[in-house]
Amino acid sequence: MHTIERDQFVFSFSGHHAPVLTVQSGDRVVLRTNDCFSGQIQGDEDLVTSIDYGRINPATGPVFVEGALPGDVLKAEIIRISLDNQGVITTLPGIGTLIHRSEVRSKLVQIREGRRVQFSDRIQFECTPMIGVIGVAPPGGEVACGHPGRHGGNLDSSCITEGSSVYLPVFVPGALFGLGDLHASMGDGEMCGTGVETAGEVEVRLTVLKGAELGAPVVETEDSWYAVSSDHDVLAAIRQASEDMQSMIIRRWELTPTDTYLLMGAVSDVQMSQCCKPCPVETVVRVRIPKLEGMPGLVE
Amino acid sequence: MHTIERDQFVFSFSGHHAPVLTVQSGDRVVLRTNDCFSGQIQGDEDLVTSIDYGRINPATGPVFVEGALPGDVLKAEIIRISLDNQGVITTLPGIGTLIHRSEVRSKLVQIREGRRVQFSDRIQFECTPMIGVIGVAPPGGEVACGHPGRHGGNLDSSCITEGSSVYLPVFVPGALFGLGDLHASMGDGEMCGTGVETAGEVEVRLTVLKGAELGAPVVETEDSWYAVSSDHDVLAAIRQASEDMQSMIIRRWELTPTDTYLLMGAVSDVQMSQCCKPCPVETVVRVRIPKLEGMPGLVE
Repeated sequence: MHTIERDQFVFSFSGHHAPVLTVQSGDRVVLRTNDCFSGQIQGDEDLVTSIDYGRINPATGPVFVEGALPGDVLKAEIIRISLDNQGVITTLPGIGTLIHRSEVRSKLVQIREGRRVQFSDRIQFECTPMIGVIGVAPPGGEVACGHPGRHGGNLDSSCITEGSSVYLPVFVPGALFGLGDLHASMGDGEMCGTGVETAGEVEVRLTVLKGAELGAPVVETEDSWYAVSSDHDVLAAIRQASEDMQSMIIRRWELTPTDTYLLMGAVSDVQMSQCCKPCPVETVVRVRIPKLEGMPGLVE
Repeated sequence: MHTIERDQFVFSFSGHHAPVLTVQSGDRVVLRTNDCFSGQIQGDEDLVTSIDYGRINPATGPVFVEGALPGDVLKAEIIRISLDNQGVITTLPGIGTLIHRSEVRSKLVQIREGRRVQFSDRIQFECTPMIGVIGVAPPGGEVACGHPGRHGGNLDSSCITEGSSVYLPVFVPGALFGLGDLHASMGDGEMCGTGVETAGEVEVRLTVLKGAELGAPVVETEDSWYAVSSDHDVLAAIRQASEDMQSMIIRRWELTPTDTYLLMGAVSDVQMSQCCKPCPVETVVRVRIPKLEGMPGLVE
């Protein structure tokens, strides 16, 4: 078992970052993470307008995985997510679905026993812990951790939670994996631009898969597969994720393109991960198909 | 208990249609429904390109509910949905997310004991019965049953299922309620333009609510509330449903607009009902908030 402390982080995914840890395929790693504001909001009076935006969305890492080469797939099994006992929700100036009817505010909330968020005296709700940022180095240059892409990054997908596996295409030797931006809870679509942002730690198992074909992130949960895609245009993101899902089903379940499309109409869900608009960050969507009895996995 | 046979239907919601049944508020009604193609597809060789498009999306009804007046709300509790033993899934020419990679096809499927869809020799899946078309007469003129709107209509929302309640604003005396377009299963977003289309019957209880404020359809399930909205632009539909949900929470839970927005960022899901594009029919989305302990209902 390896551990990376939360002072070992990057603000971008890049093949040029030096790894902070090297592991073998199949190793388990605990990554301690900062919240998406790098802890700069410690009270309701700390507005996002007064913090350093150069310190947003740190990802703990990167981790060099021995044997991972471009064209391979990195499987990250999310074994455990542990949350801090404090979270923050904020609205962001000019960003999000209802900002035209709301003020810019920060709201600190307590997370009780890692299970319940105390939103106010009257309102509390169950935690649904998830990982906002998870990815590997992209094929060229660097991508800020606040953005999503074919390499992963800020996927903000509620299906990336304890018990799920994230499959990522490898673009550089060692993959250079990292994660951060935990949410104690986040609504699908993240309409105000944040969920309950918190620090915490995540235990993952990192495994290199040879011979799996993958061009973009795929998530596996106990009962479903998800193709995740992003674009500034929401319909383009939906189409890309749908095409990715269709291609996987054609290949792995040996259906024709039209049979796949008919099946997807009947059982595939288009789901929003991040669609808080306006926003300079791309929309992220996912297309889900349930695991069907007797049918093989879509990646391995 | 009243029953309406499936030869009593309309192809539009309109205050000008003569009611086929008059009931008291609180009465239960069984509505027998045709499939969305009026039964014109009875084999894989019956393509949508060869059927009469004037006979699409019939809604059984309309029902005149005594005492329902403009400004009231009609609550339709979905007590039971029973499916036929045959369904059809089709792709539609020029329509839907993956039509550029698929052919125009019809596929008949068997629905076994109302519980499982036999898609092929190898593939079967559980039924998730839902109502595609449900609504009342709009404030003026008529709206074809294939379109959604503030009056309901083709909402294609998977949350409209057995056990849920649909709240609709009343625009004309008697409301003139109708429903049809059952799906044995449909993926959220209905990416190919159809789900497993089938005939069947639905038992509902229709109740007039006085003094409830409602401008658009709201759905209540065992654990959630949904605001449903439609627009040709997906982001406009998301914004409208989000505004509707925000307004209900402000009014019923007595939160400020900003506290509501923060809460929605943390727990409200943006979900797709119908986003098969390109398509001449509007996109339908819904914004969900879970029922929270100790907080009152959002409509009544």
